Amino acid sequence: MRLAELSDRSGVSTATIKYYLREGLLPPGRQINATTAEYDGTHLRKLRLVRALIQVGKVPVATAREVLRHIEDDSLGRTVRLGAAVWELPQGPQPDEGDEYDRAAHQEVTALLERLGWENAKQLTSLSPAYRALVVGVATFRRLGYDWGAEQLVPYAELMHRTAVLDLDNLERYPSEAERVEFAVLGAILNEPVLQALHRLAQEEESARRYGFE
Amino acid sequence: MRLAELSDRSGVSTATIKYYLREGLLPPGRQINATTAEYDGTHLRKLRLVRALIQVGKVPVATAREVLRHIEDDSLGRTVRLGAAVWELPQGPQPDEGDEYDRAAHQEVTALLERLGWENAKQLTSLSPAYRALVVGVATFRRLGYDWGAEQLVPYAELMHRTAVLDLDNLERYPSEAERVEFAVLGAILNEPVLQALHRLAQEEESARRYGFE
Repeated sequence: MRLAELSDRSGVSTATIKYYLREGLLPPGRQINATTAEYDGTHLRKLRLVRALIQVGKVPVATAREVLRHIEDDSLGRTVRLGAAVWELPQGPQPDEGDEYDRAAHQEVTALLERLGWENAKQLTSLSPAYRALVVGVATFRRLGYDWGAEQLVPYAELMHRTAVLDLDNLERYPSEAERVEFAVLGAILNEPVLQALHRLAQEEESARRYGFE
Repeated sequence: MRLAELSDRSGVSTATIKYYLREGLLPPGRQINATTAEYDGTHLRKLRLVRALIQVGKVPVATAREVLRHIEDDSLGRTVRLGAAVWELPQGPQPDEGDEYDRAAHQEVTALLERLGWENAKQLTSLSPAYRALVVGVATFRRLGYDWGAEQLVPYAELMHRTAVLDLDNLERYPSEAERVEFAVLGAILNEPVLQALHRLAQEEESARRYGFE
């Protein structure tokens, strides 16, 4: 298809598509003469992903380029490739003040992973932004004087593990490795807000069931 | 306790405490003479909440004031009071383009709530930002060409409902109504990032279990 059709079918303006091409976010089309290039389904799919990253995920162009680079890097194993793509995305709070609360939170989160039997996650702790975000979260509760640690988090972690099992089952429905990694990135951008909305709706539902609307 | 002790025990500077007092985020202390006021445990607790809202939740002062107003408004029933406090917090994407995708997403989300038997949540749809965020999320998937609707969301919604049951069970451990509403607000600010981190860690764990690190 020509640029105009790619624009029609993707809902992205030709000017924006040209910008993505210049920035290397989309691979060039097949040049059929000096002024015309031909695009195909892979361009359409990639364009959809770039839109999700930039327009929905509000990811900077340089970050989008890094995410796409990881998605396409088939020298990496699947776990690392999924991880690397998602790790480029904006993460929860990362600063670690290195004070007594942070040190206690590190120990608490390590104890949590042990209790859960998440042996693989334990090996990733030095790399994973999610691990750091969890430490920061636990430290914040403690710094504010709330008792909210491994004890309270175990049942939540078990529910999040079931959620992750659903995520990966859904991922495996996609035939190619590239599509699976793409879907994992989209999950982090599109599905996390949906889960948050479902969680808040479920709180409203459960609250009304317990206490009514009065 | 005096201002200096309130500052020591809360970790908030006296200048910041004075600012919160001026802005009406903290109730005034009991004036014991022209220059000295006496503060107590309720000030310490409220200060902790204000810090969570402003320093951790990055909520503007005016929003924090609204949230606190709802927390203290005991003319409201618990469901509405919990809801009103949380609804003031920053929400997921709210814009609704009113196009065919949004209309289809409204129908899809209504069908989802019916299938789940969330009769109370259905009654709140015109009020609840979570409902709107869910519609926007479903519409975004569709706009990008992904098949991700009620069918796929039912098992996620069921897990989020179990998560909400845990949330409310935890809430009920607090003796007073004011503390319960406070904890619900803190849950939305502090615990949602923790859940997101647990979810991403669980994805890494499950991915490594299925595919190893290679």
